[in-house]
Amino acid sequence: MIMAKNKYAVFILMLTALSMSPAVQSQEHPMLLLTRSGVETIRSQLGKVPLFDASVQSAREFVDAEIALGIDTPVPKDFSGGYTHTRHKQNYMAAQQAGVLFQILQDEKYAAYVRDMLFQYEAMYKDLPLHPQERSYARGKLFWQCLNDSVWLVAMSEAYDAIYEWLSAEERAQLEQNLFRPYADFISVHNIQFYNRVHNHSTWGNAAVGMIGLVMGDEELIQRALHGVAEDGEIDFSLQDNDGGFLRLAGQQPGFLSNLDAPFSPDGYFTEGPYYQRYAMYPFLMFALALHNARPDLQILQHKDGVLLKAVDALLNLTDADGEFFPLNDAQKGMSWFTPSLVAAVDLAYHYGGRDPRLLSIAEQQGSVLLDEAGLSVAIGVRDGKAEPYEKHSINLGDGPDGKQGGVAVLRYGSEDLTLVFKYSAQGLSHGHYDKLSFSLYERGDEILQDYGMVRFVNIQKKGGGNYLPENKTWAKQTIAHNTLTVNETSHFGGDYAKGSEHSSQLHFYDASRSDIQVVSAREDNAYPGTQMLRTMAVIKAENFKKPFVLDILKVTSDTSNQYDLPFHFLGQVVDTTFEYESPASLSALGQDNGYQYLYLEGKGIPASSNIQFTWLNSGRFYTLTSATRQADELLFTRLGANDPEFNLRRDPALMIRRKNTGDTIFVSLVEPHGAYDPVSEFAVDPDSNISSLDILYDDDDYTAVAIVDLEGQARVFIVANVNAAKSAQHELDIDGKPYRWSGPFYAADF
Amino acid sequence: MIMAKNKYAVFILMLTALSMSPAVQSQEHPMLLLTRSGVETIRSQLGKVPLFDASVQSAREFVDAEIALGIDTPVPKDFSGGYTHTRHKQNYMAAQQAGVLFQILQDEKYAAYVRDMLFQYEAMYKDLPLHPQERSYARGKLFWQCLNDSVWLVAMSEAYDAIYEWLSAEERAQLEQNLFRPYADFISVHNIQFYNRVHNHSTWGNAAVGMIGLVMGDEELIQRALHGVAEDGEIDFSLQDNDGGFLRLAGQQPGFLSNLDAPFSPDGYFTEGPYYQRYAMYPFLMFALALHNARPDLQILQHKDGVLLKAVDALLNLTDADGEFFPLNDAQKGMSWFTPSLVAAVDLAYHYGGRDPRLLSIAEQQGSVLLDEAGLSVAIGVRDGKAEPYEKHSINLGDGPDGKQGGVAVLRYGSEDLTLVFKYSAQGLSHGHYDKLSFSLYERGDEILQDYGMVRFVNIQKKGGGNYLPENKTWAKQTIAHNTLTVNETSHFGGDYAKGSEHSSQLHFYDASRSDIQVVSAREDNAYPGTQMLRTMAVIKAENFKKPFVLDILKVTSDTSNQYDLPFHFLGQVVDTTFEYESPASLSALGQDNGYQYLYLEGKGIPASSNIQFTWLNSGRFYTLTSATRQADELLFTRLGANDPEFNLRRDPALMIRRKNTGDTIFVSLVEPHGAYDPVSEFAVDPDSNISSLDILYDDDDYTAVAIVDLEGQARVFIVANVNAAKSAQHELDIDGKPYRWSGPFYAADF
Repeated sequence: MIMAKNKYAVFILMLTALSMSPAVQSQEHPMLLLTRSGVETIRSQLGKVPLFDASVQSAREFVDAEIALGIDTPVPKDFSGGYTHTRHKQNYMAAQQAGVLFQILQDEKYAAYVRDMLFQYEAMYKDLPLHPQERSYARGKLFWQCLNDSVWLVAMSEAYDAIYEWLSAEERAQLEQNLFRPYADFISVHNIQFYNRVHNHSTWGNAAVGMIGLVMGDEELIQRALHGVAEDGEIDFSLQDNDGGFLRLAGQQPGFLSNLDAPFSPDGYFTEGPYYQRYAMYPFLMFALALHNARPDLQILQHKDGVLLKAVDALLNLTDADGEFFPLNDAQKGMSWFTPSLVAAVDLAYHYGGRDPRLLSIAEQQGSVLLDEAGLSVAIGVRDGKAEPYEKHSINLGDGPDGKQGGVAVLRYGSEDLTLVFKYSAQGLSHGHYDKLSFSLYERGDEILQDYGMVRFVNIQKKGGGNYLPENKTWAKQTIAHNTLTVNETSHFGGDYAKGSEHSSQLHFYDASRSDIQVVSAREDNAYPGTQMLRTMAVIKAENFKKPFVLDILKVTSDTSNQYDLPFHFLGQVVDTTFEYESPASLSALGQDNGYQYLYLEGKGIPASSNIQFTWLNSGRFYTLTSATRQADELLFTRLGANDPEFNLRRDPALMIRRKNTGDTIFVSLVEPHGAYDPVSEFAVDPDSNISSLDILYDDDDYTAVAIVDLEGQARVFIVANVNAAKSAQHELDIDGKPYRWSGPFYAADF
Repeated sequence: MIMAKNKYAVFILMLTALSMSPAVQSQEHPMLLLTRSGVETIRSQLGKVPLFDASVQSAREFVDAEIALGIDTPVPKDFSGGYTHTRHKQNYMAAQQAGVLFQILQDEKYAAYVRDMLFQYEAMYKDLPLHPQERSYARGKLFWQCLNDSVWLVAMSEAYDAIYEWLSAEERAQLEQNLFRPYADFISVHNIQFYNRVHNHSTWGNAAVGMIGLVMGDEELIQRALHGVAEDGEIDFSLQDNDGGFLRLAGQQPGFLSNLDAPFSPDGYFTEGPYYQRYAMYPFLMFALALHNARPDLQILQHKDGVLLKAVDALLNLTDADGEFFPLNDAQKGMSWFTPSLVAAVDLAYHYGGRDPRLLSIAEQQGSVLLDEAGLSVAIGVRDGKAEPYEKHSINLGDGPDGKQGGVAVLRYGSEDLTLVFKYSAQGLSHGHYDKLSFSLYERGDEILQDYGMVRFVNIQKKGGGNYLPENKTWAKQTIAHNTLTVNETSHFGGDYAKGSEHSSQLHFYDASRSDIQVVSAREDNAYPGTQMLRTMAVIKAENFKKPFVLDILKVTSDTSNQYDLPFHFLGQVVDTTFEYESPASLSALGQDNGYQYLYLEGKGIPASSNIQFTWLNSGRFYTLTSATRQADELLFTRLGANDPEFNLRRDPALMIRRKNTGDTIFVSLVEPHGAYDPVSEFAVDPDSNISSLDILYDDDDYTAVAIVDLEGQARVFIVANVNAAKSAQHELDIDGKPYRWSGPFYAADF
């Protein structure tokens, strides 16, 4: 055993003494994912539940192929995507599955495979130096970062648990002494900077230590998992990780429980965003399930009003029509609820969270279940035809431990006919982007106006080792990469992570009570000191519009005279504009930094009237942006690619509205999906906008009123109360002699 | 009746006298698509054949909605995509379907709808001027071009045929005298320049005139359909249509039979390419079917050894894994065998062409059938479970009336795992591109190396009225837009249509007898006078490569010293290169014309060794181009978009190999699909090339030998005989003291 510092050892002993329970000492195995009674239930149902049987079969195919290949535990060398990285990853996946198969099928070849692999690791581990790649703030041994080492231990804990009773006491002692305990110590006490954070990395670390602790019956490890490693001396709060995230924040305690409390809001929103939540979900759920089984006294599934199961619900709701997660903050597009950790999440949420039959339809799509009792429940539910469609509705999720650090709202019309994702959250830790009050828009799962996502090709080694590329920081995180306002060509909070972490946007109001007009509004007062933004976005289905549209009112007040850039990151091909523009003979970068250095200027125009319209075509559908512009506005067509010699960025376009030398101002825009184009029928249906004008009728501190006039001349008035958004508030406003009276935060008539 | 010139009238009278048959006079109706006995058969099967019933139901839904909407025959005004264009198009589609429904369901509301619509047209037609849009060389009346007027008449002939016996003799006389006969005369004798061509336009015209002639029992029209309008005086062979195609070619006779003979090769390849064949297929088949029913003596389905049904087979084979037509020549991507004219083609080919059960699986995918006896046959076949998979194999199709004007070869490995489309055809009439010896490459329906297709947004009015955009001629048709060699920055034949039409490439050999090595080779001696090209392309599946790859040997001989540009129009994102390149600070056009004016230069490099490699990622798969380069070669990364202020072009990339100041030379390249990337698992499988080097072992007039060396060091030798490609030929060649002996056009060992 690796020696801990004195003070630490004493602390641990105290903890251990306090919480030692006989249950832990004599616990039967398996105990983590599987339990002995669970295994019996499963065995009695084999061959009777198609989805479960299929999952067993696919696990067999995977593991049998790995067994046939032979065990390889190469000397660690590569970054993600390289051979040694991928091999060790395959190993723990195969061992974890093999353990389950041993329990379910009672075929000892699977137990032997796990044992042999574990002893191969046991033989190499004691002499294993730090991983040769030096990029990480917390280098691992098997992998380039402790994070991946922790993932290994989570899976291997399950594998070990499965064969625990099949091994001899001597074998267990040898593995625990030479492999598991030193391994757990390495990722915890030897890497406190990694282990004692509130961060998805640490969640993996905590879960790994806790799970192996449970299997080994090592209460010290269990407590270390729950509460972190005790530290003496001053904590240096200025230390940052490779992504620029602070390692420690004042007032935060380390350990699994803190990692459960801090990043999740009471609504279950995970502050880093859904891409990282999906990653962190697995250790959260697996360790929680293990604690639920082994330490029912902790009531972990009830912790913070059942936040873990709420988090699954929140995560499932942060997906488009295809089940792909909205790429908030750092996120690789395409990640979806088909990922294995979501199979686990859906199954556990079903089994332990009230058997919501809608979850069964997701499980059906996933086509596989967890090989435990929860998975069996789901498979039985599916077999018995209990599945109901998982229809997603509008949702507003608070961010922050208390739910008061802004949030994310998703406004949906119909069956994801139109989905608006509005982000007014906190910074989102080190994976956060500087994009207060930004939005993205989807039609039935296809992006209309995009969030770029991250600049990383995960596990593609030839692209920067599969790690974050420099442009993630210099482009993807920058404000101009998002559909929100950039002031004076600088990002929110000056792109300063510390400042960004101090503040969050604040909800003005959210109202999705009427399906035809759903509104969310939030303000941001700190991104640009001296400048305040209030953005109100509405998803509206008006009567003689065939499709719903988005109304976007962005009100800016400022002490100073500024340049405002409001980009619309559209995808697809330009069809038409109502404004003239000049196209440069050669393309140059629009700016020098803060993301502008990557944008080519492809065209520059000015509005011909008080409105501009821009129509584009994407994936067989037409879209028109109508915006109430001013004569001096500039309209910039931009395209990514400048200063990108490595082709790390997609060559995506944007249309940007630029307004110079302005203090207080207002941007009013309408994004209108219309019609369709089919290359087989070659019919263009409704290729034109139905808007004839978009007028700002009134704008002061208290109210902003907008009129939307369609091609038939019908004018619809929308008024938002900029200050008093109380539901009960009564408002009166005269516009051009016409009186408007209403209650609540907005007025909308004739829609 | 419109007066024809004297000479013409006499000629027609003669023809009419010669071929008048009593059958035509007393023919019962319907007689075109449907026959009386066919209708009886159909009626007896209603409710018993699901696919047929579904097609009836969907026709009902469409027509009932149109009936509910009311008939509108607006004054013609718009280009394709505009309201009046679309409305008249909807009208004839609805009338045609309504006629069929009347016959099948015997519900008179459908007959009344057709009658009312026809009389509304009858009322307006006599005073209708030429269409106000003046762009076409043959303006129509209802539409901007006679072409669309002809399509109207094809459909309306069917509609009229269906209600012929339901109308009174007076009603028929009124319609024929005021609408159909003048209409048929307008598109034929009044538009000889349109009607007397050998071109898909004229096929529609001929079929329209012939079909209405059959329904009316008007032998004059029938003969005019079969043989064209007789002309007096000199024919001006210099006249061109809007696409630059010649209206008349010396030696070609007008009329439907010529249109059947000339554009189709004996293999059924349509010289304009599959996109236009799919368009022309409908009138070919419908008029042929009508003649088959009404004039069995013509044996039209047996004409030219059954070329019409062979053409359906050829067309179905010119599709990717998703049934989308290869975009040879002018073609809008995405057009596929799901288009209604292919439903007709598949059904007729099945019913009249030997009931190939593979066609049933396409019909199943199409999900609808023709509402006639052929459609019924297909639906019965599907119902009875007779469908077999439509597996496509490699195919070589000759071009030209005699099949000797070059051709198109498609090499396929597996189930479209890799599909190489190699074009060595004739010019392809006015829709042809200047792309001799070009190729495109697909993996399971996804483009790897693309043919740009056409620059046109069919029926999207705001993009140039839905018509061809200028860049179609200045970019899409130009040689540099294709994966073939451009010499001295000029297109093949100097981009001169007349010159291009005089020549075709010539097949050297085609051998798909071995599935692991399939080879096609062709030469082009006329595209650049004084310069000859021989291109040999092989689809190879070598033993320790997981996927098949393409070997490309392009041998050039020339009297002069030239600049050669060989582009690879890849799709996707750059992953890696083995060569260094410089990226310009600002982007400028690569050249001045011949398509070069649209290409930005994004990077310029030089080879580091005798091979370059370039890896890219598209749709979750990796690809590597390996090429045997010379030290002085330049490697140019280009991207479309220069001089394109209207955003008519997609911003697609290419990698171009440029070789300057060179006479005879050889380009040897290998395009290697490998591995996969999944954004859900985030696993990158086989992201690296398996090639360590690609070496030119030998090259003279007679032989070129290449060695492909993989990462394990295994070298595979491929030798092509450049002169004698006879199957029986015996070859002997010493390379570096090693003797090679083989028979046939190529040597390939150790693959």
